[in-house]
Amino acid sequence: MRLSRFFLPVLKETPSDAEIISHQLMLRAGMIRQQSAGIYTWLPLGWKVLQKIEQIVREEQNRAGAVEMLMPTLQSADLWRESGRYDDYGQEMLRITDRKKRDMLYGPTNEEMITDIFRSYCRSYKDVPKLLYHIQWKFRDEIRPRFGVMRGREFLMKDTYSFDTDEAAARKSYNRMFIAYLNTFTRLGLKAVPMRADTGPIGGDLSHEFIVLAETGESEVFCHADLVEMGAPGASVDFDGDLQPLVDQRTALYAATEEMHDPAAFAAVPKHRQLSARGIEVGHIFNFGTKYSEPMKANLTHPDGQDRPVHMGSYGVGVSRLFGAIIEAHHDEKGCIWPDSVAPFDLGIINMRAGDGACDSACDGAYASLVAAGLDPLYDDTDNRAGAKFATADLIGLPYQLVVGPRGLKEGKVEVKIRRSGETHELSLEDAVARLAAKDFANG
Amino acid sequence: MRLSRFFLPVLKETPSDAEIISHQLMLRAGMIRQQSAGIYTWLPLGWKVLQKIEQIVREEQNRAGAVEMLMPTLQSADLWRESGRYDDYGQEMLRITDRKKRDMLYGPTNEEMITDIFRSYCRSYKDVPKLLYHIQWKFRDEIRPRFGVMRGREFLMKDTYSFDTDEAAARKSYNRMFIAYLNTFTRLGLKAVPMRADTGPIGGDLSHEFIVLAETGESEVFCHADLVEMGAPGASVDFDGDLQPLVDQRTALYAATEEMHDPAAFAAVPKHRQLSARGIEVGHIFNFGTKYSEPMKANLTHPDGQDRPVHMGSYGVGVSRLFGAIIEAHHDEKGCIWPDSVAPFDLGIINMRAGDGACDSACDGAYASLVAAGLDPLYDDTDNRAGAKFATADLIGLPYQLVVGPRGLKEGKVEVKIRRSGETHELSLEDAVARLAAKDFANG
Repeated sequence: MRLSRFFLPVLKETPSDAEIISHQLMLRAGMIRQQSAGIYTWLPLGWKVLQKIEQIVREEQNRAGAVEMLMPTLQSADLWRESGRYDDYGQEMLRITDRKKRDMLYGPTNEEMITDIFRSYCRSYKDVPKLLYHIQWKFRDEIRPRFGVMRGREFLMKDTYSFDTDEAAARKSYNRMFIAYLNTFTRLGLKAVPMRADTGPIGGDLSHEFIVLAETGESEVFCHADLVEMGAPGASVDFDGDLQPLVDQRTALYAATEEMHDPAAFAAVPKHRQLSARGIEVGHIFNFGTKYSEPMKANLTHPDGQDRPVHMGSYGVGVSRLFGAIIEAHHDEKGCIWPDSVAPFDLGIINMRAGDGACDSACDGAYASLVAAGLDPLYDDTDNRAGAKFATADLIGLPYQLVVGPRGLKEGKVEVKIRRSGETHELSLEDAVARLAAKDFANG
Repeated sequence: MRLSRFFLPVLKETPSDAEIISHQLMLRAGMIRQQSAGIYTWLPLGWKVLQKIEQIVREEQNRAGAVEMLMPTLQSADLWRESGRYDDYGQEMLRITDRKKRDMLYGPTNEEMITDIFRSYCRSYKDVPKLLYHIQWKFRDEIRPRFGVMRGREFLMKDTYSFDTDEAAARKSYNRMFIAYLNTFTRLGLKAVPMRADTGPIGGDLSHEFIVLAETGESEVFCHADLVEMGAPGASVDFDGDLQPLVDQRTALYAATEEMHDPAAFAAVPKHRQLSARGIEVGHIFNFGTKYSEPMKANLTHPDGQDRPVHMGSYGVGVSRLFGAIIEAHHDEKGCIWPDSVAPFDLGIINMRAGDGACDSACDGAYASLVAAGLDPLYDDTDNRAGAKFATADLIGLPYQLVVGPRGLKEGKVEVKIRRSGETHELSLEDAVARLAAKDFANG
């Protein structure tokens, strides 16, 4: 993409109403624009990142055996009356009346709707296990939307729902999502710790939150420090195998959110491994058994001929919130530093003197070669001055910058800068392009 | 994907309330489920197709130079008061009041919001041309939602907006979209004819609808028959070049929707080329000049130092509606017949006797080989009887079926069936897999 054709409205000033760094950077780097309180447009740069986050979440759901679908944003109030949550949910639920005076709502979550879908097609124990998910915009009418996309009103969530014959089988589905979440967050460049959590309005008796540690986190968390460094199981996990040992390994050590904190148990953690910090919730999984299937009569006929309510769980990832969490974890005073996996472009090409024949032809050639190699570069071909181009490149945080200037070119040299380390390499244009195409620069 | 893990709730009966074939087939093949009037869940099979349609629309937008972003579903009423459309729009607009008593609405289209975004960042003639688009759920509270996703209330639309200095430049943006649309619909397996159209509530003086001819179309259309067979310019078009001759070629012949029909002009078309038919509108493009930029004060400073309103256009594709239009164009009495480009899976593998060792191992092997070759097969590994499997495969309309049965295997043979032609090929398992992987079967 040539910057002259792109739409990248960067701001010079930090907007005064943005309290946390991720919100500030998303506004400054032209990634989002607020339309109403807690409602954002995803400008082209931000939208590219959000799509990459979404795709990683999707791939890991598919790997774990979940099947994607899409439920609508608007729901009928009647479904929520069946479960009893219509009155419980309070003012966070955006209630809508359509032209025929029907009570509707903008879905804040989908337990009722998916239970309704399941019961209308599935009646037999042979129809399960099933893991169904969608990635859809939700709405929660927060009284005080804040922190940009971290606590927005219209937000993108991935929510999976599991259907099983009994508690033991439901636990296996729960474990699939537990492990899928670890893999997901690791691919996104995040260290997320699973913590025993309160089940809140979703209900049930088994629940974990996945928490990214960050100073700007909304809640206090307590855990064994080993959990922060424990790697994810990775793509080689056999999701059809026994996942319990992997889960046990991560639940044996102490980790709890504020609501579930047990100071006595925490005191038993070796002193130097006691970690109390602030955290950002990026995922939340629930096993809630028959809480919805019972009132909504989603039953399975078992081999013994008896009908029993299906056992369910739900598993959420805050996709738009992850955007903020990744910036909180990956930035410096100059701007964002995207992990390669979610960078909006693979690299930037900076033409220090657009209009100079040698610079233009070197940049045009490099751009064409890198595109041909399957990369997606952002080529700054504008007539801004070089200093402004460097500042923008650092602000938007592409992992690599290929810098082409008239002086260097005379000596046959260009510069590759690694955004994260600030390290620079002077080399020939050909070598630079070849090594960038081969992803041959260390980006630790 | 193994069917035993997928979620494919096919129906035996044709639902009585579905009037047109696409709606009937989408319900029967387990692609959609109605949640409320005109509001649908996209079940896994349908969601896969919708994503493929969306991706083709996206690729052709990008090729034409449009830049993707995402605006939210909910909008502030104030923006629509600025343009004057808040009161004009009537009951089709779903109006919402949030907990703080602010007037909101579920966006039916985005001219106001994009104009607001543009004016807040762009002030100079140097900031244009710009083509920005998004693919987002919209809502129109139709009084009588019908024909399934063809006239739903919550629907997926791609809408592009162009920004230019003057009328002549705006016309170039219009031409880009005109040509991009021809290429898009052709890739989707549709013959869409551009027709002069009324501008309706969007406004402006230049507008074309893209119409797919189908018996179930909602409106009557009149055109020169040559237009139906005129191919799309294709991917080799230079979108930065002069597109006017390509556009002229397609607008020189008579083509008009009912509202714009001129019987005298139509009579001048040679009798045997006069085509009057019913049509489905799948795209609509508008050049409306300064209709929004003027009241909303979206001005550009020109080289002469004067501020003048930016010239705009908008360009819509009904992405969810295309789903129905493709089925209307591609089906037979047994079910859907997907063009390869949007088929939910590349092919089906039918194990005629699941549980039989030879059949299972042949199918498992073929499945693994085809996945390794980069294909996405749906493997019917269920214990349904063969007849039901054939019926389901025909109903869901995958382009190719690989049929593996115990009798054939004894002679070292399997069968490949081309869904569209009904043609079958008996050959060895190895040859079948190799030819399917190489996409070597004619599917005319």
